[in-house]
Amino acid sequence: MPYEHVALIGLGLIASSITHAMRRAGMTARITGYARTAGTRNEAARRGLCEVFDTAAEAVDGADLVILCVPVGAMTDVVRDIAHDLGNGVTITDVGSVKRAVIDAVLPLLPEHAHFVPGHPLAGTEHSGPASGFAELFDDRWLLLTPPPETDAAAIDRLSAFWQALGARTDRMDPDHHDLVLAVTSHVPHLIAYTMVGVADDLQRVTESEVINYSAAGFRDFTRIAASDPVMWRDVFLNNREATLDILGRFTEELFALQRAVRTGDGAHLQDYFRRTRSIRRGIIDAGQDTPAPDFGRVRNRES
Amino acid sequence: MPYEHVALIGLGLIASSITHAMRRAGMTARITGYARTAGTRNEAARRGLCEVFDTAAEAVDGADLVILCVPVGAMTDVVRDIAHDLGNGVTITDVGSVKRAVIDAVLPLLPEHAHFVPGHPLAGTEHSGPASGFAELFDDRWLLLTPPPETDAAAIDRLSAFWQALGARTDRMDPDHHDLVLAVTSHVPHLIAYTMVGVADDLQRVTESEVINYSAAGFRDFTRIAASDPVMWRDVFLNNREATLDILGRFTEELFALQRAVRTGDGAHLQDYFRRTRSIRRGIIDAGQDTPAPDFGRVRNRES
Repeated sequence: MPYEHVALIGLGLIASSITHAMRRAGMTARITGYARTAGTRNEAARRGLCEVFDTAAEAVDGADLVILCVPVGAMTDVVRDIAHDLGNGVTITDVGSVKRAVIDAVLPLLPEHAHFVPGHPLAGTEHSGPASGFAELFDDRWLLLTPPPETDAAAIDRLSAFWQALGARTDRMDPDHHDLVLAVTSHVPHLIAYTMVGVADDLQRVTESEVINYSAAGFRDFTRIAASDPVMWRDVFLNNREATLDILGRFTEELFALQRAVRTGDGAHLQDYFRRTRSIRRGIIDAGQDTPAPDFGRVRNRES
Repeated sequence: MPYEHVALIGLGLIASSITHAMRRAGMTARITGYARTAGTRNEAARRGLCEVFDTAAEAVDGADLVILCVPVGAMTDVVRDIAHDLGNGVTITDVGSVKRAVIDAVLPLLPEHAHFVPGHPLAGTEHSGPASGFAELFDDRWLLLTPPPETDAAAIDRLSAFWQALGARTDRMDPDHHDLVLAVTSHVPHLIAYTMVGVADDLQRVTESEVINYSAAGFRDFTRIAASDPVMWRDVFLNNREATLDILGRFTEELFALQRAVRTGDGAHLQDYFRRTRSIRRGIIDAGQDTPAPDFGRVRNRES
């Protein structure tokens, strides 16, 4: 059964993409929304993303689906603001990149008559704000649901169907395992990319114009990742501390082994290591999660 | 004055792209080539990239430009093979990602009547081999020349004009400074990407199918970089050891500071760090070295 009234709390990249994807899917649900800053609310209203309200409580009034699209660290305050205005049988979900911390923070605040089905769309770009959304964002991307064991099965199925209609593939996962998997596929890669860009920015002996002009040799891929929303990422690391530190530990161990191979001139070790990483790329392309076009298809060309 | 006969030693991504770009530019020079393995030579011949010879010496016979398109570690052997067959006034250049080691290895082997103008096109994709080239590879990318001080000025200008006709922008740089700059913009980012992909590949608690399916959250960008040619990259690290270790040292110092901020929950430090890296991305886009389209333009969409 489709939702009749979807409320979006937070009106950035994910929320605005949801509005575009809902319209593309022909959904006729009422869409209401709220954002903390007046500038964001005004821009969302001007773009006609949804009916925009000045409080979160007004935005969720009468909704049968509430989607929390705010940084992980802002979830608690937002849920406090709306808990008393949630209707009977409403489904609450979120799009946070961390799941255990969100469940621990949000679940105790919700009324018993609400279904909490935490979720995470593995989709995004380096852009943010109400102008950055587009209907295709979720196409073929995974939406992971991490519902607590006692969650109403019908509420889970209904939310899965909603995301599938937006173009996503859906799956379920244990929240702690989700946080570990995402530490590998997202959180640590982001921290590393931020670090590398920070090092380049900070180096006295290489000018910023050199870094910028000569970035096409690899570095520019890091800058895209490191251009993502700073507050969102701050909250990810504060709320997925253990898994992040765990994977970072493995990363530095591995990096030191390679560093040692560079220092000692152990070419065989380096070549072996570099060779086995190609197959993962092939798997990602075969799974429809990236383009086989060289350089992400940045250059439109024929491969002859 | 355009070259009349260009010899390509090594027939991979860069060499095959040179042949396509030369034809696109309407150059009528004879193009000859050589590759070490018979399979590569046959494929290059079948594709009509150039006249293919079974020895490097035959390929360079009569050439007025010889471009060494082999991994940095293979330069010495190749130059030994051709040194006695180089004509008077010929220009030798290379496309190696490291410049000091190439100069030290190659220069002593060349006859006095040859002009050695080392070069490095900051262009590439994760693909390799004679089938991977395309005419647009060098468009708007930088070609850095690092000629020794005593190099013939006319030879440098002539080579610059050649690369510009292929679409590149050209600049000159001191070879040691080149190696430091590239350690920042290319070599260390590649080593880090290889490391992260290796960690993911190796982790027992996260399955390969999870890594692959859920890679869109950041990791897949690393896999593209880590799918580059293993032998080429082995040689880069073996031949740019000092600068790589130098920048790696800065990287781990910075990473440990961020790791500590994660451990202690220092959100202000994280957010500050993540905020200042956005401006570099903007600079790279303004300099024409990357696309402003979200996600590298992987998804064709309108940003509303």
